[in-house]
Amino acid sequence: MNYRMMAYILGNIMQVEGALMGISALMAVYFAEIGELKAFLLTIALLVVLGTFMKWKVPKNRRIYGREGFVVVALSWVVMSFFGALPFYFSGAIEGLMNCWFETVSGFTTTGATILSEVESLPSSILFWRSFTHWIGGMGILVFVLAIMPLADERSMHLMKAEAPGPVVSKLVPKIKSTAKILYGIYIALTIIEAIFLFAGGMPLFDSVAHAVSTAGTGGFSVKNSSIAAYDSPYFEYVITVFMLLFSINFNLFYLLLIRDFKAVFKNEELRYYLIIVGFSTLVITANIYHLYPTLESAFRHSVFQVATVTSTTGFITANYEYWPELSKTILIVLTMLGACGGSTGGGIKISRFIILLKLCLREVRHIVHPRAVNIIKLEGQKLNEETIQGTTGYFITYILLLFGSFILVSLDNYDFVTSITAVITALGNVGPGLSMVGPVENFGFFSGFAKLVLSLDMLFGRLEIFPMIMLFSPSIWRRD
Amino acid sequence: MNYRMMAYILGNIMQVEGALMGISALMAVYFAEIGELKAFLLTIALLVVLGTFMKWKVPKNRRIYGREGFVVVALSWVVMSFFGALPFYFSGAIEGLMNCWFETVSGFTTTGATILSEVESLPSSILFWRSFTHWIGGMGILVFVLAIMPLADERSMHLMKAEAPGPVVSKLVPKIKSTAKILYGIYIALTIIEAIFLFAGGMPLFDSVAHAVSTAGTGGFSVKNSSIAAYDSPYFEYVITVFMLLFSINFNLFYLLLIRDFKAVFKNEELRYYLIIVGFSTLVITANIYHLYPTLESAFRHSVFQVATVTSTTGFITANYEYWPELSKTILIVLTMLGACGGSTGGGIKISRFIILLKLCLREVRHIVHPRAVNIIKLEGQKLNEETIQGTTGYFITYILLLFGSFILVSLDNYDFVTSITAVITALGNVGPGLSMVGPVENFGFFSGFAKLVLSLDMLFGRLEIFPMIMLFSPSIWRRD
Repeated sequence: MNYRMMAYILGNIMQVEGALMGISALMAVYFAEIGELKAFLLTIALLVVLGTFMKWKVPKNRRIYGREGFVVVALSWVVMSFFGALPFYFSGAIEGLMNCWFETVSGFTTTGATILSEVESLPSSILFWRSFTHWIGGMGILVFVLAIMPLADERSMHLMKAEAPGPVVSKLVPKIKSTAKILYGIYIALTIIEAIFLFAGGMPLFDSVAHAVSTAGTGGFSVKNSSIAAYDSPYFEYVITVFMLLFSINFNLFYLLLIRDFKAVFKNEELRYYLIIVGFSTLVITANIYHLYPTLESAFRHSVFQVATVTSTTGFITANYEYWPELSKTILIVLTMLGACGGSTGGGIKISRFIILLKLCLREVRHIVHPRAVNIIKLEGQKLNEETIQGTTGYFITYILLLFGSFILVSLDNYDFVTSITAVITALGNVGPGLSMVGPVENFGFFSGFAKLVLSLDMLFGRLEIFPMIMLFSPSIWRRD
Repeated sequence: MNYRMMAYILGNIMQVEGALMGISALMAVYFAEIGELKAFLLTIALLVVLGTFMKWKVPKNRRIYGREGFVVVALSWVVMSFFGALPFYFSGAIEGLMNCWFETVSGFTTTGATILSEVESLPSSILFWRSFTHWIGGMGILVFVLAIMPLADERSMHLMKAEAPGPVVSKLVPKIKSTAKILYGIYIALTIIEAIFLFAGGMPLFDSVAHAVSTAGTGGFSVKNSSIAAYDSPYFEYVITVFMLLFSINFNLFYLLLIRDFKAVFKNEELRYYLIIVGFSTLVITANIYHLYPTLESAFRHSVFQVATVTSTTGFITANYEYWPELSKTILIVLTMLGACGGSTGGGIKISRFIILLKLCLREVRHIVHPRAVNIIKLEGQKLNEETIQGTTGYFITYILLLFGSFILVSLDNYDFVTSITAVITALGNVGPGLSMVGPVENFGFFSGFAKLVLSLDMLFGRLEIFPMIMLFSPSIWRRD
């Protein structure tokens, strides 16, 4: 293991986190929140000093192999979450270090599950930092570091692979650094456009920005206790629905739009599946909840918003679907697992993986019918190699084992079946709300410290697509070669 | 497709079913149940006449290929269930053809989920037929037919593969016919021994036989409303626990014991995993429910019984675990999915498949650490070929998709989350009881006809390990080559 290079990358990440926290510190100055300003400055000082210390020696050997990439990504998320939690802790905004950790992991992993029953009384700079963690975690801080780090080269592809969501990572342009820059450019542009749309519709500036960064990361933290429902505005609901869906499709497609390759966008298999899933679910749920709403439009609006919120794995809400018929709830829970498209900021199993899994079922059937025929599986018109297939099945099996393993651990708290299992599903999928005691208008504060630890690890497992986190816990990795 | 040979096999099966139903007809004579006798005789007449008609022409070409084997197995289970339901229908013991179908599918698939809220008032011959379907379905009627059919030869291995549970089917002796005979010999012997143990302990003869055949098939239908709890006898509970576990391990092991190859039994990997899972679960649940029972022994007894009932996928109960702490319930539900050992009469995903899946996870981790190393997966000391691995992952993926797909369909009935999902899990795993409205002391009668159809298909999917049933529904199969 190239420990020096790993330390160097971690140092970079800590400094970047310190710089990003600076924005919240400036807000604390603007809103004259002295206690919070101190908390931010103290954390920033820690990040900068420790970061500089870790970057002290520039490594001669800059090679990062696959497993080191995985380990450094997992480590960086743990470190990032730990330091990201300190402002909450130092300022006293959230009580107890475990709660601060849970809230921050939930933020960076863009889950949006909160332990707070009430957020509107929090200082603005703290509220902003809470939402901003979504934005940082959405695209991945490592991708960001890659975009600015002087020594990023082609060998850093391993890092991007480990952090980017979905089964396949493709470079848009030959240089990885340029790819990272293009992705961040699109990300920033879309965030600003959403903020403008919200502000133009009459949402306060602070709220507009907070919700835009939260949507961009497909996070779900709101600055209102009752989330988007607080505004009671169909305009905001439709705007956020559209942007949740935009942020949950592969960012490569936006690049293709920019270079005017419309044909490639139109032919995108994952996008088509995704639109069919979203469209069909919306229709079924609209029909299923129609009798609960005064007009067809309002039933449709609440249906499409809630479908978009779970498929994009954002977690904003406009309706307490706890009281919807079981069919709608079941569909939402299944979509919670499924998640968004690969290469987006959304979480979950991912549509592209789901397509591969479906095709593997069909391959098995075909294999029984014609045992000797060669069975090729294609995605986006390209033959999938055995490594991708094995990676996908390996991911899926581990995901299911993790789900039921966590379910057993969380049920130690002795809350009801639905609470425990949907808490795990929503944590693994980085969505936020579940059902029953973790339903749309509830929070995670009541769980024991142990359950909070399990759920926060599930969020990290989910965000990093399992294997980087497993690496962290496997002793063979830490042995010297 | 060799339609003539398929018809010939189906004809055989129908005649055998008619002959087995004869035992119940004799009981109806003994207990002087005239209406039931008529119902049995009418069904037997139908089976014999139709069976003879289908066997009219002995096929010249006796080759059965893989896919034909799958189709004929699936068809035979549907046909068997349909005719098996007729005595319930003709005698009026169960109201409505869908209910009769559900009860019979639940019987043959050894699920043991019932739509009846009360069974003790049923005529004895009907009660016996109900339990006896477990015994017939446990080992598989096709294996039985293979054992007696004159034209069974080595090419019939495809049939056995399609019906026998587990990822790997091994022949005990070179001739498949002899293998089938040995397996049935062990099955009959163990059933008789259990009946003797129960009878010797003071259980009425009829109850002893009924519970023995039900245990042997790992079914779960009881002749008492409150299942084994009705006897309130630790002796019966321990005896049935032991036999549930015996019937849920690979039957090959009994053969190995018979030929005194103790070493092979001791070295069996699946058995070791199974015992560890059963032992560990029993310990955890005992500790978890200790405070609910007067003595440690009774807590242990109820714990091990309920663990054995779900891992063996039998479904007898001695305690309403609906009121146990959540941890115990969660473990029982996870075990419900996991199921028994391959090559037993038990259902579920199977321990051997679970071992393969676990090893696939580890392979994926190893692959990331050492991308170029060759990763071999072994089971029982033997290298698994790619076909078995693909078959296992294909099965698991399809199983999970089926589980959540059925969950959505069953939730159309608008019963609570836990009822719908555990009904599907218990149907797919061929166990019987779930939680909430389908809990240990409840029944499935309240579901709509559509939900009953979905759940009964899930039982067939579960019992036949998915793919034979999928074949039945895939149009390409029915096309003429």
